[in-house]
Amino acid sequence: MVGARNAAGAVPGVPGQPVVVRALSLLAQFTEQRRALNLSELSRLADLAPATALRMVRHLTEWGALEKLEDGRYVVGVRLWEIASLSPRGHGVRQIALPYLEDLYEVTRHHVLLAVREGHEAVLIDRLSSRTATEVAYRVGGRMPLSTTAVGQVLLAYAAPDVQAELLAQPEAQDVGPGRVPAKDLRALLAEVKQAGAAVVRRTHPSQTVSVAAPIRGAGGDVVAALSIVVPDAATQAHEMVPLVRASALAISRSLGHQGKASGAWRHPVAL
Amino acid sequence: MVGARNAAGAVPGVPGQPVVVRALSLLAQFTEQRRALNLSELSRLADLAPATALRMVRHLTEWGALEKLEDGRYVVGVRLWEIASLSPRGHGVRQIALPYLEDLYEVTRHHVLLAVREGHEAVLIDRLSSRTATEVAYRVGGRMPLSTTAVGQVLLAYAAPDVQAELLAQPEAQDVGPGRVPAKDLRALLAEVKQAGAAVVRRTHPSQTVSVAAPIRGAGGDVVAALSIVVPDAATQAHEMVPLVRASALAISRSLGHQGKASGAWRHPVAL
Repeated sequence: MVGARNAAGAVPGVPGQPVVVRALSLLAQFTEQRRALNLSELSRLADLAPATALRMVRHLTEWGALEKLEDGRYVVGVRLWEIASLSPRGHGVRQIALPYLEDLYEVTRHHVLLAVREGHEAVLIDRLSSRTATEVAYRVGGRMPLSTTAVGQVLLAYAAPDVQAELLAQPEAQDVGPGRVPAKDLRALLAEVKQAGAAVVRRTHPSQTVSVAAPIRGAGGDVVAALSIVVPDAATQAHEMVPLVRASALAISRSLGHQGKASGAWRHPVAL
Repeated sequence: MVGARNAAGAVPGVPGQPVVVRALSLLAQFTEQRRALNLSELSRLADLAPATALRMVRHLTEWGALEKLEDGRYVVGVRLWEIASLSPRGHGVRQIALPYLEDLYEVTRHHVLLAVREGHEAVLIDRLSSRTATEVAYRVGGRMPLSTTAVGQVLLAYAAPDVQAELLAQPEAQDVGPGRVPAKDLRALLAEVKQAGAAVVRRTHPSQTVSVAAPIRGAGGDVVAALSIVVPDAATQAHEMVPLVRASALAISRSLGHQGKASGAWRHPVAL
């Protein structure tokens, strides 16, 4: 597993690590807030001697994993993106899901999200949004907490018991701030999500929204991704969106080769 | 630069290369046709001793650049995809362009492609398609030839003179098969593309299509990407699509911070 993340979300390099890991730690210094870094920043952040950092950055740049800007700073290269696009859990699922995401977007005109689980977080694989849709905080390739987002709750509800236990046991893995769910409530909530075959999460930040998510299953029957729609809280009754999102997730599952029936039965709630 | 590609499109590892480059050469063995590889395949394809390959694959897997399937084969990992999504020329351009791609898709219902140049090829950054749109041969993250595709001709037409000269001088860099353009004709064609501010390419394989592409400029004025629409040949007069694609590309350029005016003037052809 990847080491502990520092405050900025990046993983520091550790002297004595294998060369491969140190090179990867250079790549891991790039974050959404730090998309361009100069050599001394890379060296400092990855905790590598300047000469070592220079040598590795040169190799990474020659190969195309990094690209050098005119101002001398480095950014992540298209060649890395190209190989990464072969990730079955990244672009693979996206490629099959995209037409269905577009259908869902077309009939609703709201944000449509596709996410997979990576460790104790969800990674946003795709997002369709019109310029006029409500504000959401996540970007494609970015991470989302498992316990406080609708896609996260779906991914966590269907994760292996040991993954759930790990997350519930680690205080730092539980989200803080608005929407935080205490561990004991989270257990009950995850059971409800599995029962319903869908998760519904209200948020007030960055805007008043309701997210409705449903599981996507692969050929083997495992939940491989989660689909969600994010709508303004005032615009809709959340329970009205559940059958739509579940049906879209089932259609994607079918395209991924899943043969089984939907599990979970959404009961129309008396008051939501 | 990256070494010569073998017949399968991958770059073989070379003994004596730095460790970083050898590790990257392992990643480079994954292609669209070979999305999952076992250890002995990786070792053979990357030309690494089995023990070396095993050690590197372990490091790459622990870090998340590779993921191990239940059958023991390896695939590209979501963690690599996540970092690669920070590539300004990959997801960066895509993120800004996506709403405009959706607009273009919405008003036409045809394939919409976004591509950037990487060396002597174009890399497809995004594609919006309905399930009912005509068949196209390219996938997101995949490579497209420069001289025989509309996005490729646009990217090549606006590339630095030395890039054009390199490509025209290298026989292997010129496409073979249907749509191949001889070097002398290509020079004239690229001048026409710049003059018009758009490229129009007819294809007969895998289906009868017309592609219309236009350049997207960044804040500095350089052409950073190309936008195209792919329509069934029977459905439309190609010249009718040119203003639409150019206008969309200009809107994306504006969002990328480009202030200048469009260059190139499309003259309505007498016969197309």
